[in-house]
Amino acid sequence: VTARVGAGTFVSAHAPPARDRPDGHRASGLLRPRPVWGSIDPPTAFARAAEFDFRTGLPDSSLFPFETWRRLMVRQLDRAAVGTGAYADPAGHPDLRAAVARQVGLSRGIPASPDDVVITNGTQQALDLVARVLLAPGDRVAVEDPGYEPPRLLFRSLGARVVGVPVDGRGLVVEALPADARLVYVTPSHQYPLGTTMALERRLALLDWARRHRAALVEDDYDSEFRFGGRPLEPLQTLDTAGVVVYVGSFSKTLLPTLRLGFLVVPRALRDAVHRAKYVTDWHTSLPVQAALARFIDDGDFARHLRRANARYRTRHDLLVRVLSRDFAGHLEVVPSAAGLHVSALVRRATAGQLDAVVARAADAGVAVQQLAWFALAPPARPGLVLGYGAIPAGRIEEGLRRLRASFP
Amino acid sequence: VTARVGAGTFVSAHAPPARDRPDGHRASGLLRPRPVWGSIDPPTAFARAAEFDFRTGLPDSSLFPFETWRRLMVRQLDRAAVGTGAYADPAGHPDLRAAVARQVGLSRGIPASPDDVVITNGTQQALDLVARVLLAPGDRVAVEDPGYEPPRLLFRSLGARVVGVPVDGRGLVVEALPADARLVYVTPSHQYPLGTTMALERRLALLDWARRHRAALVEDDYDSEFRFGGRPLEPLQTLDTAGVVVYVGSFSKTLLPTLRLGFLVVPRALRDAVHRAKYVTDWHTSLPVQAALARFIDDGDFARHLRRANARYRTRHDLLVRVLSRDFAGHLEVVPSAAGLHVSALVRRATAGQLDAVVARAADAGVAVQQLAWFALAPPARPGLVLGYGAIPAGRIEEGLRRLRASFP
Repeated sequence: VTARVGAGTFVSAHAPPARDRPDGHRASGLLRPRPVWGSIDPPTAFARAAEFDFRTGLPDSSLFPFETWRRLMVRQLDRAAVGTGAYADPAGHPDLRAAVARQVGLSRGIPASPDDVVITNGTQQALDLVARVLLAPGDRVAVEDPGYEPPRLLFRSLGARVVGVPVDGRGLVVEALPADARLVYVTPSHQYPLGTTMALERRLALLDWARRHRAALVEDDYDSEFRFGGRPLEPLQTLDTAGVVVYVGSFSKTLLPTLRLGFLVVPRALRDAVHRAKYVTDWHTSLPVQAALARFIDDGDFARHLRRANARYRTRHDLLVRVLSRDFAGHLEVVPSAAGLHVSALVRRATAGQLDAVVARAADAGVAVQQLAWFALAPPARPGLVLGYGAIPAGRIEEGLRRLRASFP
Repeated sequence: VTARVGAGTFVSAHAPPARDRPDGHRASGLLRPRPVWGSIDPPTAFARAAEFDFRTGLPDSSLFPFETWRRLMVRQLDRAAVGTGAYADPAGHPDLRAAVARQVGLSRGIPASPDDVVITNGTQQALDLVARVLLAPGDRVAVEDPGYEPPRLLFRSLGARVVGVPVDGRGLVVEALPADARLVYVTPSHQYPLGTTMALERRLALLDWARRHRAALVEDDYDSEFRFGGRPLEPLQTLDTAGVVVYVGSFSKTLLPTLRLGFLVVPRALRDAVHRAKYVTDWHTSLPVQAALARFIDDGDFARHLRRANARYRTRHDLLVRVLSRDFAGHLEVVPSAAGLHVSALVRRATAGQLDAVVARAADAGVAVQQLAWFALAPPARPGLVLGYGAIPAGRIEEGLRRLRASFP
């Protein structure tokens, strides 16, 4: 069981070895990938779910309304909806762009028109499009440290120089940004993985910095649909008066990651270029699933689903935080967090050196947890744990934590 | 009606103008795309289907087995198939990789194992992955002239220097390849748009050239599933003994372009890098549609569909060629072609200067045809027409051609 993450998780790509062809020299071949790919090492992650599964980045797929989706997919799979024979608009299905614009307006206060929205294959492609439009090889990109790994791998693969910027209890430390950063990738609503919310004055300072440096702020709002208290702060996108924010949303956490659906809200000056980038990249996102999602939102099913999921996740969040605070007081200090699908906890000094052993013992006991260090860019990493509750039902949380507690010295 | 193509066609991306936000300065914003995007100009193409629609690159969507697909999508939309909550393998759904490997083995004689196959969002993403893995900015890429435009735009957006290489009746002129080309993009089965087949000795010369120059050959086999006579020549991939060929296949012509499904058969030395490129690009292709396609192939539905479609397209191809040869003898010389979804015809000298007027008059008469010149990289372009029969039923071909004939002087 490997567990390099910051990436959600996926089942290992390594299939059984291929039949060798009779002509053995083809096995190698004359072509060589560019050297950068040797250093782009995606997480192999857990090969299968653990008995007590506290991995992050995964929603509870049992909440997904399969029956409704089957009905919608059947309705959309007809010639009028997806079968004109022609290719579709790179920016996305018009109904879905309109539905997303309304949705982010209502839920996040973002004043988007349908024309500002571009439908993508999840967050990862949204970031790829923005990077292709804005970054030249050698450009500097700033990311949160600790932070989400897949964007770092993407930016490096495009030849960018990626630099980590520390995060404190109020979010990204704006003074630590390198002056020549062309793009800053941030998770203000629910920092990944720490779980903190970027404070308002930090948001304003970041926007001011970006305006002065003419840098792009890419705001990844990956799981802010789930909130368990307090009024959410305004997104950077809403506070932006200079057109420097690109907002990224995802349906991977609210629906299913395997659908691969996300979106961008793009400043007008970048709109044409992003459409063109989408066109040369893969023309457009698969149309039937776009059409189904548009109906799912328009019919009110998405709002109903979010309410139901929110109630479930709130129960898990509150239980997890309660047990952590009660039973792990000597070892862990929970990082306050009122949103999303995971919490993190810093490890107190006494236990810090033994964290690898703790996590290994927990794994032996059927408990999958991740370390903060796995999300770090530059050592020394803060010792800590990250506990997701998307993949574990409430009924298993207490026993899972009991086993985790027994793994501590 | 605009008509810049070489691209299939898609409905114009230009939506009605957005509501202006109250804060007008956001309309522009401080960010600027990289200059290269200013020159990446996707085709706007026909805004809607013509009465007599000879556009290329479009299959007949009325042939698509919607009922079977609805049944398969319903079956695949369950938790076991797509809803584990985790992300999936970047290389593709294992059942689909296996099904594609068998399919290309049977239909094209390509000895692929499932591990050689990578599932992509259509041909365009397949090319993007290969380009990202192999090309550095400034690298030279050779493409056929005339040729398919979207890959040219893609390569240029990645900073490659794209150079056109002439095509004659036997395919790409190998002696005209620039010695420093790192990648050569070709359509040997059915040259797009001329429709010719690359001769065997030309294939062998191209492979020898690539081996000597350690260049990649990207073989786009976009519509070779449709054949109307003769035994197909072996693909470059099958003839390759040096591991220099990347084979690209698509389901856009055999099924529907809006599904966005294609695949790569990758030399082993590039495999890991291509998986990593797919991972950073968009993680993986939408899983439900992959699962449905795997069953569609495994159940024999794909083979049945191809047989049915092949019979229909053969009727249209033969009729089109017969009428062109009979009624346009003074104006057009049909380029022999026994595969795919379009034929081209060179215009005889007497009419060549009037081709723009002919095509405009045809459009006024409800007939959409494309000019060879629209696919050219460098002038002077050969005067000629390209006539697709994917989007026009057999019953409309004769009247469409009668109107086209009346548009000639």
